[in-house]
Amino acid sequence: MSEVREQEVLDRIDRARRRPAKVRDERITLSHGSGGKATHTLVEAVFLEAFRNPLLEPLEDQAVFQVQGSRLAFTTDSFVVSPLFFPGGNIGDLAVNGTVNDLAVSGARPLYLSAGFILEEGFPVADLRRIVDSMAVAADAAGVQVVTGDTKVVQRGKADGCYINTAGVGVLERPVSLSVANARPGDAVLVSGPIGDHGVTIMLARGELDIESDVESDTAPLHELVAALLDAVPVRPEVRGAGEILGIDPLYVACEGRMVVVVDGAQADTALAALRSHPLGESAAVIGRVKDDPPTLVLLKTEFGGTRIVDMLIGDPLPRIC
Amino acid sequence: MSEVREQEVLDRIDRARRRPAKVRDERITLSHGSGGKATHTLVEAVFLEAFRNPLLEPLEDQAVFQVQGSRLAFTTDSFVVSPLFFPGGNIGDLAVNGTVNDLAVSGARPLYLSAGFILEEGFPVADLRRIVDSMAVAADAAGVQVVTGDTKVVQRGKADGCYINTAGVGVLERPVSLSVANARPGDAVLVSGPIGDHGVTIMLARGELDIESDVESDTAPLHELVAALLDAVPVRPEVRGAGEILGIDPLYVACEGRMVVVVDGAQADTALAALRSHPLGESAAVIGRVKDDPPTLVLLKTEFGGTRIVDMLIGDPLPRIC
Repeated sequence: MSEVREQEVLDRIDRARRRPAKVRDERITLSHGSGGKATHTLVEAVFLEAFRNPLLEPLEDQAVFQVQGSRLAFTTDSFVVSPLFFPGGNIGDLAVNGTVNDLAVSGARPLYLSAGFILEEGFPVADLRRIVDSMAVAADAAGVQVVTGDTKVVQRGKADGCYINTAGVGVLERPVSLSVANARPGDAVLVSGPIGDHGVTIMLARGELDIESDVESDTAPLHELVAALLDAVPVRPEVRGAGEILGIDPLYVACEGRMVVVVDGAQADTALAALRSHPLGESAAVIGRVKDDPPTLVLLKTEFGGTRIVDMLIGDPLPRIC
Repeated sequence: MSEVREQEVLDRIDRARRRPAKVRDERITLSHGSGGKATHTLVEAVFLEAFRNPLLEPLEDQAVFQVQGSRLAFTTDSFVVSPLFFPGGNIGDLAVNGTVNDLAVSGARPLYLSAGFILEEGFPVADLRRIVDSMAVAADAAGVQVVTGDTKVVQRGKADGCYINTAGVGVLERPVSLSVANARPGDAVLVSGPIGDHGVTIMLARGELDIESDVESDTAPLHELVAALLDAVPVRPEVRGAGEILGIDPLYVACEGRMVVVVDGAQADTALAALRSHPLGESAAVIGRVKDDPPTLVLLKTEFGGTRIVDMLIGDPLPRIC
């Protein structure tokens, strides 16, 4: 490694060592909602610090716990995407699929959703109907039911039409424990399909880019794809992790129907075949390997044969993507 | 009854018969978030129509379902209260207690909460810490853990500082089925304490009334009070319902730590004693009886010996109370 890269590595480790993270900003910025570095710092310094418990601590997309012997998964997401309607979907199916997927990547079968609406005074009822109808269609497709909800209305100028929170409950019927923390050197890293479709669709829908394109949001429920994978790869510690890994440039652009999967290297071909057997995984590919050196870094091989560090997202180039 | 009142009764029944409700408004108004008539119409015409399933259909504060033999309760609420801080609490403990209480009134023991934050760009991190710390204290007091969460940030002018959604999962350990639908003629109606404290506190905190007062929000977790009641009144169909009944004037002003309980008339004294045995039920009182005539109406005896119909809240005199 070059000296510059080595310094980057050392800095990165040094930053990790300086945890628990401190929020240096006095005020919330858009970066705190990006899902990148600022979000992680805020979550660790403010939320985890206050709520700390063993279920929250892994900071996965969902919490997994036992109730009377059943293993349940529980998750929540708020959706503030702008615009509300875009090619391939709208805030409604995004809100259903997002929570279905956060359950699915734990290996849970999604069962029930809640839906909390924050509506801005003056929002067209017809738009609300379109959104709610899309939620119903998406819930039906994902095999879940919306069983409880809440509606709040705020004055004009205190929201942006419609915000939706969904929470979800699922059941883990397999004895699996999926977590990025399980990734081990030698594991293969797969992605279930092309990335960035959702983010680019939103950018184009905002008219911020002078580009014409047929790209559509990849919003889709992934529970069947996860199930296909778990059914194909024997249920053993080999199935070690599912999660999201962030990358550079296009890699930082949001997906809503893709997943990154980490499996034992020896199972990579089986896992790839399982993903490709499902329509949502047709373009699945092995994209990397877990190595133990250098530690805590994601390295990317460039088209020109070089190597780059893929760090966490800094700032928020594209706020309110979901 | 007078002819005027009789007509009111007939009109009320007529309105009920014209369900399923239609939303006549083309745009969302503050009334749609009031929890009164407009909210019910919106929920029935838009949400229930799209999501209809047996778990959602009772439109209780929570859904109760079985997973692998366990009976679980699941609920959600978004909180948009203004101001965020007020005597007796803030949006944080309100968000915890509100969801704890929605679980508690089903007879469930609240277990786990999710927390979804929608923050406005520029919101002070110090205020967020105060809110989150209050949530942690309230969760600890209610015996629940915040195990999963989400943070979104929207641009300035697209929210009002901080909105919070909490969803909650609880377990029904007793073979009870609490629902206002179980109320039968002869049942007694009890209230656990003085009403309207929260709403008046918010009004005063806004400075909209030129009144000085020491009144504080009644925000509190009710799960122990429900448990005390279920322990005192034998677990039989006599324990028939817990819910909220709306009334006129002060009756329409929000509570966040009170509950209305419907029990078999013969058990009223036992239930009252059970409520009064808990600090949060010290001022509990029997406030009415369930009768079968006139149907679907709540009648109030006035201080002057008259009788008035207590209809559902129309409009929203006090938006964003929680």
